[in-house]
Amino acid sequence: MTLNQRYAYHGTLVLLFAVLHFSQAGHPYVTASVGQPWPRPQMVQPGEGFLVVRPQTFKFQITSHDCDILQKAIKRYEGIMFAAPRAPKREFHAQWSKGANFQGYLDTLSVQLMTKCEDLPHPDMDEQYEIKIDSPDFPGVGKIIGQSIWGILRGLETFSQILVPTGDAFTVNSTQIMDFPRFSFRGLMIDTARHYLPLSKIEETLDLMAMSKFNVLHWHMVDDQSFPYVSKAFPSISKLGSWTPSQIYTAEDISGIIEYARFRGIRVLPEFDTPGHTQSWGVSQPGLLTTCYTNNTANGKFGPIDPTNEANYEFLKKFFTEVTALFPDHYVHLGGDEVNFDCWKSNPNITTFMVVNNITGDYAKLEEYYITKLLDIVANLPTKNGYFVWQEVFDNGVNIANDTVVHIWKNYKDPSVVKNELSKVTAAGYRTVMSAPWYLNYIQYGIDWYKYYEFDPQDFDGSEEQKRLVMGGEACIWGEYVDATNLTPRLWPRASVVAEKLWSSADHTNSTTQASPRLEEHRCRMLKRGYDAEPLWPSYCDVSYD
Amino acid sequence: MTLNQRYAYHGTLVLLFAVLHFSQAGHPYVTASVGQPWPRPQMVQPGEGFLVVRPQTFKFQITSHDCDILQKAIKRYEGIMFAAPRAPKREFHAQWSKGANFQGYLDTLSVQLMTKCEDLPHPDMDEQYEIKIDSPDFPGVGKIIGQSIWGILRGLETFSQILVPTGDAFTVNSTQIMDFPRFSFRGLMIDTARHYLPLSKIEETLDLMAMSKFNVLHWHMVDDQSFPYVSKAFPSISKLGSWTPSQIYTAEDISGIIEYARFRGIRVLPEFDTPGHTQSWGVSQPGLLTTCYTNNTANGKFGPIDPTNEANYEFLKKFFTEVTALFPDHYVHLGGDEVNFDCWKSNPNITTFMVVNNITGDYAKLEEYYITKLLDIVANLPTKNGYFVWQEVFDNGVNIANDTVVHIWKNYKDPSVVKNELSKVTAAGYRTVMSAPWYLNYIQYGIDWYKYYEFDPQDFDGSEEQKRLVMGGEACIWGEYVDATNLTPRLWPRASVVAEKLWSSADHTNSTTQASPRLEEHRCRMLKRGYDAEPLWPSYCDVSYD
Repeated sequence: MTLNQRYAYHGTLVLLFAVLHFSQAGHPYVTASVGQPWPRPQMVQPGEGFLVVRPQTFKFQITSHDCDILQKAIKRYEGIMFAAPRAPKREFHAQWSKGANFQGYLDTLSVQLMTKCEDLPHPDMDEQYEIKIDSPDFPGVGKIIGQSIWGILRGLETFSQILVPTGDAFTVNSTQIMDFPRFSFRGLMIDTARHYLPLSKIEETLDLMAMSKFNVLHWHMVDDQSFPYVSKAFPSISKLGSWTPSQIYTAEDISGIIEYARFRGIRVLPEFDTPGHTQSWGVSQPGLLTTCYTNNTANGKFGPIDPTNEANYEFLKKFFTEVTALFPDHYVHLGGDEVNFDCWKSNPNITTFMVVNNITGDYAKLEEYYITKLLDIVANLPTKNGYFVWQEVFDNGVNIANDTVVHIWKNYKDPSVVKNELSKVTAAGYRTVMSAPWYLNYIQYGIDWYKYYEFDPQDFDGSEEQKRLVMGGEACIWGEYVDATNLTPRLWPRASVVAEKLWSSADHTNSTTQASPRLEEHRCRMLKRGYDAEPLWPSYCDVSYD
Repeated sequence: MTLNQRYAYHGTLVLLFAVLHFSQAGHPYVTASVGQPWPRPQMVQPGEGFLVVRPQTFKFQITSHDCDILQKAIKRYEGIMFAAPRAPKREFHAQWSKGANFQGYLDTLSVQLMTKCEDLPHPDMDEQYEIKIDSPDFPGVGKIIGQSIWGILRGLETFSQILVPTGDAFTVNSTQIMDFPRFSFRGLMIDTARHYLPLSKIEETLDLMAMSKFNVLHWHMVDDQSFPYVSKAFPSISKLGSWTPSQIYTAEDISGIIEYARFRGIRVLPEFDTPGHTQSWGVSQPGLLTTCYTNNTANGKFGPIDPTNEANYEFLKKFFTEVTALFPDHYVHLGGDEVNFDCWKSNPNITTFMVVNNITGDYAKLEEYYITKLLDIVANLPTKNGYFVWQEVFDNGVNIANDTVVHIWKNYKDPSVVKNELSKVTAAGYRTVMSAPWYLNYIQYGIDWYKYYEFDPQDFDGSEEQKRLVMGGEACIWGEYVDATNLTPRLWPRASVVAEKLWSSADHTNSTTQASPRLEEHRCRMLKRGYDAEPLWPSYCDVSYD
């Protein structure tokens, strides 16, 4: 890695500040770094000097293309940098201007967007950016340069993270940063079915995602337990299937979230999981779910969607037409996980249907029959969406289209089985997104993030071509034991660990020891910005409490 | 249990309300009870009717003794009952006054305190109370009766929990409740050394403790990692040992917490753990900690307090004189856990001391030497305190005074070992408090409260006399991975499970199935009152989000 070696990463100067920061500090498990960004940029070339940023006089200056996303971002970052809700109380120290390495004041940061703003973040968006602070080619000044608005957003976040509070101002080291993501898909999945999440919590999650350069919010919106999505075509589903009349998401609510995400360069990938995980759909839709039988008598229970009922495909077509019109992303997640065959097996109409169709006893084939029809419906909608499915659809041998993305989630306890799945899926030519090691809802006592950091989604037996089919990964926080009360501390900073693994280069993310001081700083950064990111170990953050 | 059978507990009427509450409700794992208090009262005799409480006209009326604690409590409960921060939006329903069982309006609740208020909650306080709502002897009216102010506080909490919101008013069933705690010591331990907890978080914890009828806050204030206690006699300990200059507790802060707790009938038991767990003490106190050696050379590390240095006992006397004057409780917790002998073994001065004292090689004896001197110091302070020690002090055969309370905490994974320890400690005639099964910091995925509920601290081999030596128990939330960001959701409702086990009778706390709907209601109650108690399973609470 010649390029990386040339842009050697070191932090002698910033570490000096860490030591001076307090005259006291108890006995923390790990001492936070100072002014080190998370996730770690691809290439950093530090200089010798530093500039001073004075909040009163500092300004961003847009020197090329401009748009609403950029305007709003600049406003947002001024607040983040200079008015963090829990920033420690400031004392004035004059030392910073006296050092030999003081290179002057950074009063203007040029923001140079090289192409016209795109409207919406998308799967192939360019997130590359450069930061130059008092660089050899531009001494004494500062710049963020990006080919696309999405890169500029990532650069602004990095810039906000390399400022170091000093007295009533900030210092920023002379540096050149060239940065871009390792993977194009860096997702976080939330589940609003096991518990409702209020819109303000989803927005907070998007803020925190932007801090760690995540770019996809996967919204597992409905499930067996509840159906908060208010469908215009089928309003009775949420009327009978939501937890309460107010624990719902209207089209307007959803568009608000998509807009909030767009301004942060984050796509929203909706999931409407079928044919299993649909109990809450059934209450209002007679005939949608399979009637379960005991001894050839309907027992009052219901199973997955009834694949033999033609009317159900009409329903699905109408439903997904609405959903894909509402969510602008190219992709929709169609689920397909954990289809329980017991109810299908008990139902005499399904048995007859399978006889007629010559698939007697082969319930995976029945599932394939359903999935194939569903994929066909979705692929032929006016929006021509692509789709994600959970890995069972592939595992069960369903004949899926080439551009399907297979989402791997099973066997988190056994990385070798997960790697084997990666080999199989990519050998079959499918693109894939990895979630198995990153189910953050599985909590345990103690430091549990090392294992998240140690899993590499391209470390499996396969050709270079196969490796390229790994689009990225996704941290998941399933909602059985999570709601607005504990979402934020349970997710952060644990999700940030996955974010760095997906953004930074493989050879910069192979040491938890090296990552620890930066992760500690990142968690304190979240705390300072007002978010309840939980502690990683015995430690402290220099924040001011109410 | 004849008495309990007579006062049979049932809830047909209130369960009816549960069903009517929503026309929809997804598929919750457990449906909450309605108007059922937590912890479960000892005896409840429900009547047939109900009264209606109208917030606009309802008043508490003090009919006997009065004091500042009572005045403040009444004001507090008016807020809790009628202005809970996240109470659902109200709609007016007139049905309640039309039912045949409507017995009228409860416009006044008499609060009848039978004796003069005590100033401070104490180990032998009387917490018994009665509630009569439209009872046969007092039809149409309501009363809370208590022999002591502490019972009145518990009764007010219960009353606030049996009100059921209906339209813009509340209903309360005709009922008689006679209630008292099973154990006199019902504690919760917080740790402000591994992470600092701001005062507002400790106050919130006290609010939540009062909701579950806990009566002791055990404050593990300092430890290896930090020393936030500002000692007047030794100000340099916190100057050099706290995390930051603002992450401290002054005498004024502490008195404020003790006062806040007093108004809720909660004692504050301070812990200053020695001779181990004292790294943070050492920085400012040369000679206090044992110098560790490698190959007979001091290696720059320090161990437990040096028991051979006579000056250290002068220090401890002065320190505990100050502490026991500040904390009014009869008891002080002296720690004594996890003393690592390695550093003592390495130190040549200690070896010489042990030779001279004829205890060569017996480090438990050296620990005994220290503890005996410390207990002697504390027992002879002007405040004549009693003391708690962690179980190792007993296990290591230290000769401790008869009135020592032995705090059991080890082997949480093996209840049989814990029960054996109970047998041994009580057979030796010591009183004990149980924490081993209730280390709430040990988290795991899924429903983990069943095991907390299934442990009974009197279920061990021993005589009736031995059983009576069990003063109660304590839930502990050690702070390695806990701070202000996650304390509340991690503690609640899990700590409430321990609270009910310690308050309610053994034969009313032997079924997690029966407890589940009430626990679900209790967690929603906390949420409505504005506290972030986390979910127990897939479910919902009828709360209004920002």
